[in-house]
Amino acid sequence: MKVIEKIRDSTLDGRVVFSFEFFPPKTEDGVDNLFERMDRMVSHNPSFCDITWGAGGSTADLTLEIANKMQNIVCVESMMHLTCTNMPVEKINHALDTIKSNGIQNVLALRGDPPHGQDKFVQIQGGFACALDLVKHIREKYGDYFGITVAGYPEAHPDVISENGVATLEAYQNDLAYLKRKVDTGADLIITQLFYDTDIFLKFVNDCRQIGIKCPIVPGIMPINNYKGFLRMTGFCKTKIPSEITAALEPIKDNDEAVRSYGIHLGTEMCKKILAHGINTLHLYTLNMEKSALAILKNLGLIDDNKISRSLPWRRPTNIHRVKEDVRPIFWANRPKSYISRTIGWEQYPQGRWGDSCNASYGALTDYQFMRPRSRDKKLQEEWGVPLRSIEDIHERFMNYCLGKLKSNPWSELDGLQPETKIINEQLGNINLKGFLTINSQPAVNGEKSDSPVVGWGGPGGYVYQKAYLEFFCSRRKLETLIEKCSNFPSLTYMAVNKDTQWMSNVGASDVNAVTWGVFPAKEIIQPTVVDATSFFVWKDEAFEIWSRVWASLYPEGDPSRKLLEEVQSGHFLVSLVDNDYVNGDLFAVFSDI
Amino acid sequence: MKVIEKIRDSTLDGRVVFSFEFFPPKTEDGVDNLFERMDRMVSHNPSFCDITWGAGGSTADLTLEIANKMQNIVCVESMMHLTCTNMPVEKINHALDTIKSNGIQNVLALRGDPPHGQDKFVQIQGGFACALDLVKHIREKYGDYFGITVAGYPEAHPDVISENGVATLEAYQNDLAYLKRKVDTGADLIITQLFYDTDIFLKFVNDCRQIGIKCPIVPGIMPINNYKGFLRMTGFCKTKIPSEITAALEPIKDNDEAVRSYGIHLGTEMCKKILAHGINTLHLYTLNMEKSALAILKNLGLIDDNKISRSLPWRRPTNIHRVKEDVRPIFWANRPKSYISRTIGWEQYPQGRWGDSCNASYGALTDYQFMRPRSRDKKLQEEWGVPLRSIEDIHERFMNYCLGKLKSNPWSELDGLQPETKIINEQLGNINLKGFLTINSQPAVNGEKSDSPVVGWGGPGGYVYQKAYLEFFCSRRKLETLIEKCSNFPSLTYMAVNKDTQWMSNVGASDVNAVTWGVFPAKEIIQPTVVDATSFFVWKDEAFEIWSRVWASLYPEGDPSRKLLEEVQSGHFLVSLVDNDYVNGDLFAVFSDI
Repeated sequence: MKVIEKIRDSTLDGRVVFSFEFFPPKTEDGVDNLFERMDRMVSHNPSFCDITWGAGGSTADLTLEIANKMQNIVCVESMMHLTCTNMPVEKINHALDTIKSNGIQNVLALRGDPPHGQDKFVQIQGGFACALDLVKHIREKYGDYFGITVAGYPEAHPDVISENGVATLEAYQNDLAYLKRKVDTGADLIITQLFYDTDIFLKFVNDCRQIGIKCPIVPGIMPINNYKGFLRMTGFCKTKIPSEITAALEPIKDNDEAVRSYGIHLGTEMCKKILAHGINTLHLYTLNMEKSALAILKNLGLIDDNKISRSLPWRRPTNIHRVKEDVRPIFWANRPKSYISRTIGWEQYPQGRWGDSCNASYGALTDYQFMRPRSRDKKLQEEWGVPLRSIEDIHERFMNYCLGKLKSNPWSELDGLQPETKIINEQLGNINLKGFLTINSQPAVNGEKSDSPVVGWGGPGGYVYQKAYLEFFCSRRKLETLIEKCSNFPSLTYMAVNKDTQWMSNVGASDVNAVTWGVFPAKEIIQPTVVDATSFFVWKDEAFEIWSRVWASLYPEGDPSRKLLEEVQSGHFLVSLVDNDYVNGDLFAVFSDI
Repeated sequence: MKVIEKIRDSTLDGRVVFSFEFFPPKTEDGVDNLFERMDRMVSHNPSFCDITWGAGGSTADLTLEIANKMQNIVCVESMMHLTCTNMPVEKINHALDTIKSNGIQNVLALRGDPPHGQDKFVQIQGGFACALDLVKHIREKYGDYFGITVAGYPEAHPDVISENGVATLEAYQNDLAYLKRKVDTGADLIITQLFYDTDIFLKFVNDCRQIGIKCPIVPGIMPINNYKGFLRMTGFCKTKIPSEITAALEPIKDNDEAVRSYGIHLGTEMCKKILAHGINTLHLYTLNMEKSALAILKNLGLIDDNKISRSLPWRRPTNIHRVKEDVRPIFWANRPKSYISRTIGWEQYPQGRWGDSCNASYGALTDYQFMRPRSRDKKLQEEWGVPLRSIEDIHERFMNYCLGKLKSNPWSELDGLQPETKIINEQLGNINLKGFLTINSQPAVNGEKSDSPVVGWGGPGGYVYQKAYLEFFCSRRKLETLIEKCSNFPSLTYMAVNKDTQWMSNVGASDVNAVTWGVFPAKEIIQPTVVDATSFFVWKDEAFEIWSRVWASLYPEGDPSRKLLEEVQSGHFLVSLVDNDYVNGDLFAVFSDI
């Protein structure tokens, strides 16, 4: 979706929206950390996130890669910066073709700073001289596909700011006129350069309106994080610093904590003033940091850790080809990035269900890389790489995870349990100790309000439902006992399969069981999570592979623990169990006397 | 669906299935009555119904028409008889092409009796000599499209039964061998000629199996309805009558009631014996009569008036092109035949929703004929054609209908209220008296068991839901009051439109509101009834037209009552009102102080 459309929708609804800007980190660990941070920040529903294009195109490949993963794996509407510096038109087109094919619809078109060590911007041969040329080119070559954002300079472009720190009136007006040309040529949104004098921004908006610029103008807010950085950045951008800010910072400049607190306070006050003037969009220059930006939004009441609202039980994709995806197998519930990554070639949603397309282009598990940041591997090594003397030691690992004593799990991408799992974690602990090693579950939900904090999704006014679900590994003997007991619990349906694809089930091969659904005013029933045999068969390969690829590989070759895990992997069944009676059922009752 | 597939499914599930045979009545009233009767009988879920082909093709056109309406309007899986008598191959093909294009998949292929006044069957030029030729032709020309049934003669074909009432062993064996050839050539099901000696039927089945006939053999049961008819039929078919039957009938032969009772008793006993021998199919020759056939099935425990099971809230279509239809607008809930009739050109279900195809081939109201039998017109005249002095008289009609004091309603095809309407009929009566003239409604249902007698559907093990719904005509003033009050009831959504298409609503034009849905084990959520603006717009023409075309037309030209109705028609709005809170809502609360 184009960011401009999201902003228009929010304006109609009277909602305030905000966005976050990031830059490409210099190290692999930095990239890992950025994605983890971004993932957390995206749970607060920014309208979009953008990623910068390093000076002189220095980060081109990394920026393209990050933009792709932001859009498709983190699932946030993404905007990529693109500059003319050192970019012949072929490179420009390559970048645009790449993001287009990755389902990204938003570009921030810039002239760009000169590359490091160079003083002034120089147009290269076969390249563009300015952002205006770039906007024109994008519209000419790609029509309406892209939403195009351009930069607005409330104090005029730094190039025309003289040594006394201000632009002449003429220079300022020329700059405004140039901005209008960028908009007239096809840009649909303006984000401003950072500023610390809110009145200058408000005057700038007013001046833009005076000369007929009608598109939204989003203020770019950069929270002050530390004193030196602040000076460097404002110096580079020739930003005016109001004297009261200088006065407030001077006495605390060596106390990083105090500077950050002041930065949050200042950012909050600036935003309050902007919002009070009827501007409903805020863009935060995060400098890849999380705390200050979130603190400001919390102060403004725009986010609430206890009220994370979800439009679906899983994070809705933003890729233009995939935005209609409306159903997912439950099996990947704790591995959403694995799911998205492996189905990334599926462009036809909601038709792209497993039954129709599992043979087409399902990615291999080896493709699935960046979603296992090194920090998680370390945690796994520490919590799961312990010596295993017997099967009971394995049972205990699973139990401890369910009881919250471990934070990591080889079968989960998440940090710790999902909030709803905590509703049933004691019961889960019990059955794990009995040798039913759970890797996925959900409690039954019978018509909770759709804005209830733990199980709600889809916004207010509706009711949500879940069938109780358990997925676990267990031995053949335990499985047979369980199946026997199932005959006394007619509302239970199960599917079980081992590594060699031996199959036991009491449902049809083509049955699709909706296990999460919601009823909303004036809407059809939404049923985003299902249990079905076709995708279970695909999932089981991944589920079994994790025993060796993720867990056993924590031990050296030949280690007895490793051998034990491989025995479990080849001897156990993977079982999917649904209690279809979400009103009166008790999924754990069938385990009670095993 | 082919009948053989339905029988195979039922055999797998161990269910007993039954079917009804009808013949084309001689008069138009007779046809009206047959359809009303068939409609009632079909509510007991026969696996199929068949319609005979008059001797010598005398009823060809009528049989084709009835078969079409059985399949498409009554919505029962239909089988058409087709005989060779007087039928050149072009006529055969025309008949088969016709039923194929009408979505019928089942044919009973017969040689046929000689036409009236002719002694023996004579092959006409360009025609077929026997059922075997016909079966061969159907398979050659239509491949696997049709399920083909043939007749089996437990006592051999009447033509080879000599004057002493029995066929020679050789004739019987030839007849069996001929039956095997019919099956080998492509018939997939056998229905037997009527019999009254069950042992003969059981021996016949056994003899068939001995020579390798493997398809199901369905016993044809003809309940004795009156003595003379019984003698005529058994004489014509040369059916053996066991002496105990003769002995039982002789003393009561002039008492029709006693004969019928005996017929029910005898039919029940015959069927019991057949079922006890592991045969799970029964075919009833109804002679277009209802009572005896249903009484036998009731005695056998195969039907229960208090437990009519519905697979959906509306009767599922059987037309091969339409069998996947899975959703309907609620507006035609009391006029299902009108709905089917007007959408009969829509072959693509479930894609054939209003939003996609309302412009394509929606039939005019004038096309809608046979669904208004003369008897209903008479009832309407009597109950609704009364002098109307004021608008209050109109309110009173509507109220009385809701209170069950009237049986007919211009806006309904049904006899009286739907069972679920009785849950809310007092409340409906109240608002009708206030001038909210209801023509459609349903109570809220919050997770009733899916086999509950009044609101259940879809079989056992699930839960069904409904949002409370009201549809009514009211004046503009009343509508405005109502809309004002709606602001205090945020769970209400409404659409209102008048004859001139003035529109008021608090929902989006493309919103589709599921108002009936069900949750079943190992299934996706089924949502068969919706409220949406697109189809409401189409429906409103029919709803407004009924004021004049059905109600006002009960009065002579110039009658003051007629004028009053026309005023209401042009001044009132049609309003559709949903309470989206099916858990805690009260749809009638908004009316309480109007």
